[in-house]
Amino acid sequence: MSCVKDNELDRMRSEVLEITKEILRLVAKRQSLCAEIGKLKQSKGLSIEDPSAERILREAITKEALALGIEEDFAQRLTTQLIEECIKVQPKPPEKKVLTHRDIARMAEALERQGVRVIRMDVGEPDFRAPSVVVERAYQEMKAGRSRYTEPKGKQELRQAIADYVKMRFDADVKADQVIATMGGAFGVYLALASTVSPGDEVIVIDPSWPIYKSCVRYVGGRPIVLETRLEDGWEPNLDELNEKISAATKAIIMNYPSNPTGKALGKKTFKGIVEIAQDRKLTLISDEVYADYNFTGSEHNTVLNYPEVSYVLISSFSKSWGMTGFRVGFVISDLDRANKMAAIQSMLITCIPEFIQYAAIEALKCLDEAKKNSEVMRERAEAVCKALEPLPVSFYKPDGAMYVFPRIDVKGIDGSEFAVKLLENKNVSVAPGGAFGNYFNYFRMSLGQPKEVLVEGVKRIGEFLSTLS
Amino acid sequence: MSCVKDNELDRMRSEVLEITKEILRLVAKRQSLCAEIGKLKQSKGLSIEDPSAERILREAITKEALALGIEEDFAQRLTTQLIEECIKVQPKPPEKKVLTHRDIARMAEALERQGVRVIRMDVGEPDFRAPSVVVERAYQEMKAGRSRYTEPKGKQELRQAIADYVKMRFDADVKADQVIATMGGAFGVYLALASTVSPGDEVIVIDPSWPIYKSCVRYVGGRPIVLETRLEDGWEPNLDELNEKISAATKAIIMNYPSNPTGKALGKKTFKGIVEIAQDRKLTLISDEVYADYNFTGSEHNTVLNYPEVSYVLISSFSKSWGMTGFRVGFVISDLDRANKMAAIQSMLITCIPEFIQYAAIEALKCLDEAKKNSEVMRERAEAVCKALEPLPVSFYKPDGAMYVFPRIDVKGIDGSEFAVKLLENKNVSVAPGGAFGNYFNYFRMSLGQPKEVLVEGVKRIGEFLSTLS
Repeated sequence: MSCVKDNELDRMRSEVLEITKEILRLVAKRQSLCAEIGKLKQSKGLSIEDPSAERILREAITKEALALGIEEDFAQRLTTQLIEECIKVQPKPPEKKVLTHRDIARMAEALERQGVRVIRMDVGEPDFRAPSVVVERAYQEMKAGRSRYTEPKGKQELRQAIADYVKMRFDADVKADQVIATMGGAFGVYLALASTVSPGDEVIVIDPSWPIYKSCVRYVGGRPIVLETRLEDGWEPNLDELNEKISAATKAIIMNYPSNPTGKALGKKTFKGIVEIAQDRKLTLISDEVYADYNFTGSEHNTVLNYPEVSYVLISSFSKSWGMTGFRVGFVISDLDRANKMAAIQSMLITCIPEFIQYAAIEALKCLDEAKKNSEVMRERAEAVCKALEPLPVSFYKPDGAMYVFPRIDVKGIDGSEFAVKLLENKNVSVAPGGAFGNYFNYFRMSLGQPKEVLVEGVKRIGEFLSTLS
Repeated sequence: MSCVKDNELDRMRSEVLEITKEILRLVAKRQSLCAEIGKLKQSKGLSIEDPSAERILREAITKEALALGIEEDFAQRLTTQLIEECIKVQPKPPEKKVLTHRDIARMAEALERQGVRVIRMDVGEPDFRAPSVVVERAYQEMKAGRSRYTEPKGKQELRQAIADYVKMRFDADVKADQVIATMGGAFGVYLALASTVSPGDEVIVIDPSWPIYKSCVRYVGGRPIVLETRLEDGWEPNLDELNEKISAATKAIIMNYPSNPTGKALGKKTFKGIVEIAQDRKLTLISDEVYADYNFTGSEHNTVLNYPEVSYVLISSFSKSWGMTGFRVGFVISDLDRANKMAAIQSMLITCIPEFIQYAAIEALKCLDEAKKNSEVMRERAEAVCKALEPLPVSFYKPDGAMYVFPRIDVKGIDGSEFAVKLLENKNVSVAPGGAFGNYFNYFRMSLGQPKEVLVEGVKRIGEFLSTLS
């Protein structure tokens, strides 16, 4: 009896093997077909990635999976693998070398090591120092031996202080358990994506955007789907276009207002419009609001915290408001389930953030005047830079907030990467090339992390350099 | 002409769709077959996961992929997806509830909040404080405004200090560019795995082991393959068994000596044997040596740094040697290519570790006497605990290093989780249940992060509790 059954098991296993081989044969057939399609597209000058063809495929797969009783998520993941392999076998156009602000920063540092004084407008780091009470608190706690493991989300005391802060600041009702103290805003972005995206899922990214959004979406196995916004529209996202970008595979929208790099802040109507789309289409809204305190408009900052009806992750940081970049502390807020999921990831990857830094963060939350003062300084800098840019052959949006100006170079045939490199070489001014933020190759980003006079001198040199080009 | 070609494109695209649907149909057929196999296995009392059957499948797939001209990696990834979905549809045995040290820690904290004094031997955290020069250095740097972004790998000065330290300590030749300062040892483990493992890859984990190894392997999409070691063998890994565990899908071996939880350190012969197997089979050896400084044997610590011929990642930390757990600083060392890959991940996820903590770490590296003193204290504690354990109905390996003792309970019918909970409730002593470290349900782990007298009192209570059981 047992022997018969063993034979049965063996027979079934070899059948599984045969089916698996048959699947592979079909995959091979599919790939050679894809390679042909690639050649055909190339001969017609069409681009390799084709979201609309993919969407048709995905919708058909959804139906087929349903009919066959296969889990849809699994079918979509499988499809993603097939699509990715398909893209691999298709001929690729020569890649455009895109320099990021980090490349320019490295070049600037190399010059500095040679003793050259460079006007640094590349990296998005404020020049403010942490308030001295923050430093002293960190020291006192460290001295008292508060350098032990804490719970992964961070100490209750800090999370309650953050909940109280967002209540006071935005009238948002949040429980301490919904809050996680993270390694800066960056790790918050990662936690939000890692807890939302499975391989093959799509995430809408509103361009121009901080390059890490797209790399991080790819890193967790997802596919960034770009919604482009335009200077001509005042960088306002078009909600109809947004709706069109959403497919069966979309899981989230990332937004970042006030925006890096454009300085755009959304009005309430558009903000609410995006919230409603996310809610309708059952997406998670990942809202990176690290620049909430750099607000120059006088009107209220719009925060996702005021829309608890949508599935959201708020990302915030102590880096910008209080000049605490190198403390590496930020926070995320979401519904409790997702917060617990993110905390489990944080626990596995980094255990927790340093204990005494958690106390330093509590202290920072009390420094409201400092945050206000820093915001005012940024506003003045933005004002001065915009004024200095006026006579130059550039077009730009006057920032509502954040710490950047993102001008378009109105000189024909200039590429942002080339511009940034030559500007650095000829005028010792470093800016971030626009191509790093999306399809904005004739733009550049100026960071306002320097005293006003330095920035104005930088703009003057940019003007001189531009005049040699036109 | 263009119209004809468009038709051709459409025709080819619908063929791709048909093939994709056919693949899905085969997947559905495969799954129903798998469900049947599952029922058959259940009726025969066989376990669902079957590594040897999987290995046969994988080897056949490798051949088939080669014959079809499909990338092997892709074929294996696809196979992994199919296997995982297959496991999902098979009936599962009821899951054994395994408590970890974190569960016990939470229960202990709840008791403490009620005012109960608990002898805490659950969490692996030394009670030592960071040397005061470390605290002062962090403060001075913080005050001087050294709280800015640094390069992702960490400041050159720290990485050079680490390279000098491993030269002095282990006579290991390492360049500063091979070193990355990480968020503690934990993030080092993640970076090592994330840069080595693709979905579907296998990683050998030597049990009993720190639970995060297995969870982190799974988190990056890999499958932990366990090599069990036994108390009867003095926790010595069997190299023949190790060789047998390696398949075409294996990418790495994780080892951790001195070991958490057993306290085992490897002799040179076995250490070298593992290095040679990794080298022969082209695997990466991930060596977690965070307990290198807690060495009670008098003989040299064996480090992977002395075997640059093998692909390796060394993981180390400042947490244990200098009592700096809550500073969250550690380091990894590997070949330059992998170091760059890991640095790119660190850059995207956390930017860098706090700048002033990097300076604190430089200071710690100079505190050699402190590290030695801490090691000596741990040795004395291990000695005292082992002596106190002698008369008890337990068997254990006398630790060569690390900060744990891992006894087996020689009382019939006792489960480690139940034991830990009842010990805590009845005697207010918290230990980590053995099941958290692998298939060691009648073991428990005692952490030596308390003064000797406290630990000995803890063992006394354990003895009293055990005497009520036998």
